[in-house]
Amino acid sequence: MSFDLTILGSSAALPTSRRFPTAQLLKAGERFFLIDCGEGTQIRLRQYGINPSRIHHILISHLHGDHVFGLFGLLSTLGMMGRKVPLHLYGPFELEEFMNSYSRFFGPLPFELVLRTPSENMDFIYESDELTISAIPLKHRVPAFGYLFREKKKPLNVRKEKIETLGLGIADIVKLKRGKDYVSKNGEVFPNSQLTLPPMHQRSYAYLSDTLFVPELAEYIKGVDLLFHEATFSERDKKLAKQTQHSTAAQAATLAKLAGVKKLLIGHFSSRYKEPVLLENEAKEVFKNTEGVNDGDIYSIQPERLSGE
Amino acid sequence: MSFDLTILGSSAALPTSRRFPTAQLLKAGERFFLIDCGEGTQIRLRQYGINPSRIHHILISHLHGDHVFGLFGLLSTLGMMGRKVPLHLYGPFELEEFMNSYSRFFGPLPFELVLRTPSENMDFIYESDELTISAIPLKHRVPAFGYLFREKKKPLNVRKEKIETLGLGIADIVKLKRGKDYVSKNGEVFPNSQLTLPPMHQRSYAYLSDTLFVPELAEYIKGVDLLFHEATFSERDKKLAKQTQHSTAAQAATLAKLAGVKKLLIGHFSSRYKEPVLLENEAKEVFKNTEGVNDGDIYSIQPERLSGE
Repeated sequence: MSFDLTILGSSAALPTSRRFPTAQLLKAGERFFLIDCGEGTQIRLRQYGINPSRIHHILISHLHGDHVFGLFGLLSTLGMMGRKVPLHLYGPFELEEFMNSYSRFFGPLPFELVLRTPSENMDFIYESDELTISAIPLKHRVPAFGYLFREKKKPLNVRKEKIETLGLGIADIVKLKRGKDYVSKNGEVFPNSQLTLPPMHQRSYAYLSDTLFVPELAEYIKGVDLLFHEATFSERDKKLAKQTQHSTAAQAATLAKLAGVKKLLIGHFSSRYKEPVLLENEAKEVFKNTEGVNDGDIYSIQPERLSGE
Repeated sequence: MSFDLTILGSSAALPTSRRFPTAQLLKAGERFFLIDCGEGTQIRLRQYGINPSRIHHILISHLHGDHVFGLFGLLSTLGMMGRKVPLHLYGPFELEEFMNSYSRFFGPLPFELVLRTPSENMDFIYESDELTISAIPLKHRVPAFGYLFREKKKPLNVRKEKIETLGLGIADIVKLKRGKDYVSKNGEVFPNSQLTLPPMHQRSYAYLSDTLFVPELAEYIKGVDLLFHEATFSERDKKLAKQTQHSTAAQAATLAKLAGVKKLLIGHFSSRYKEPVLLENEAKEVFKNTEGVNDGDIYSIQPERLSGE
């Protein structure tokens, strides 16, 4: 299945002419997950040729304007486009009251809004056959969550040529798919790894924004394929980052290093930096495989089989 | 002074990739008046090189999302840009509660918001030395107002050559500026029109959106230089226009004709029409001097002296 991240907005609080406020779209197979919804999200979706009706899940990190001011417009549009099926909204508790204020001023939405707030004892805030999403507690000026998207482990694939040569039946194949060894009628044991393809790698994406630099967050995101971490400030504005509970580019990179992620994306750049390449360079000094994102960028994580057969 | 209208958003409820929801900016001299504030207004201001801090007056037609969803973002941005001076907000009564919900979720704004709602016995909702703004009651599904901007009459200019040849003093000039005739020391009467330049035309702009076609509205906008009238629908969707309390392009043009305006702008096009030129053509059949607007268009009304000396 596809595992594609599209950057819809990459600015921090103040948008620029080229950077809209924060929003991202993760397409996992046929499912679209919107992550945050800054002002203009629905316009970016149009501009990038994405039908907003395909979105069934919206994950909100926190209730600051640059992450939610596009929500009313998007939901209103979905209603006008004739949506009848429920929309699932995830985020801090305050979201419920915020959405109530929508209905108060603009009338009820013509579809159900299913709200879910992460709690401490919750494994997954979302789970399907293919994917799980867990929430990660961030440290910001208001309650805030990051989100970790991870593909589920898939059943093993039995090597086609072995099915023929060994004359495997359906019951044998089911057992092999579950990881068991195969024992032939004459008692010969074939180890599972000889008859199956190496398992597929479980792809993963973590989104952390907005947050103070918290080294402990690395525990949640060990070895993910792709990490987006906010990098609002340059190292020279480290004090301001701490004071506003944001991160610097180097801090984002330090977390990527601590967690051993494969690739780091940084964004949520303060508009004070005319050239965000400065922030990218600061991060690269700590963690080489870093990229500063722009609106419209797409990052695809390709499926791959784990080696080690 | 300048009298320039910039179209910031020209779509109806559903934005398209090229048309943002409704917002316009009138620059009258050094003053900027924002008219409606659909989602993305602050982004359009950036894209068109307009510093949002220069806006001190925002006029809202009505509390439908496509006219106000950009308000929270814009005000929040003004706060972050360090605004301290008051901002004047005009519009229906419900605006107050709507803005209260802003402070409830996102904290107080660091500047004063001065709200004013049009009332029946109000001449002008705004008045300065140069300009008046009056509100026009529209007919829509919720309380709605149009706005009429009109330059004030300026004092007459005395012809320089006459000052010299007749040896006019300051007291004489002041009287002439007020429209009185000049009487020389030997009793000779010089009619005012011989000693002054023809008066400047008082430029005017009317904004009517959203509204059902109401012929009586023509009375409010007789002979304006520029009229923007919503034209959400084509004539073939006339029933839908009536049902949703909107206008067709031909109805907008009919109003322009009834009011004898100089030029008609139409916009707020439903996204169902891929080619709004269809709407423009329908309007032109009724009122030739019509133009369909696009985001980024600028219309300048030039100062001119009334002829007839």
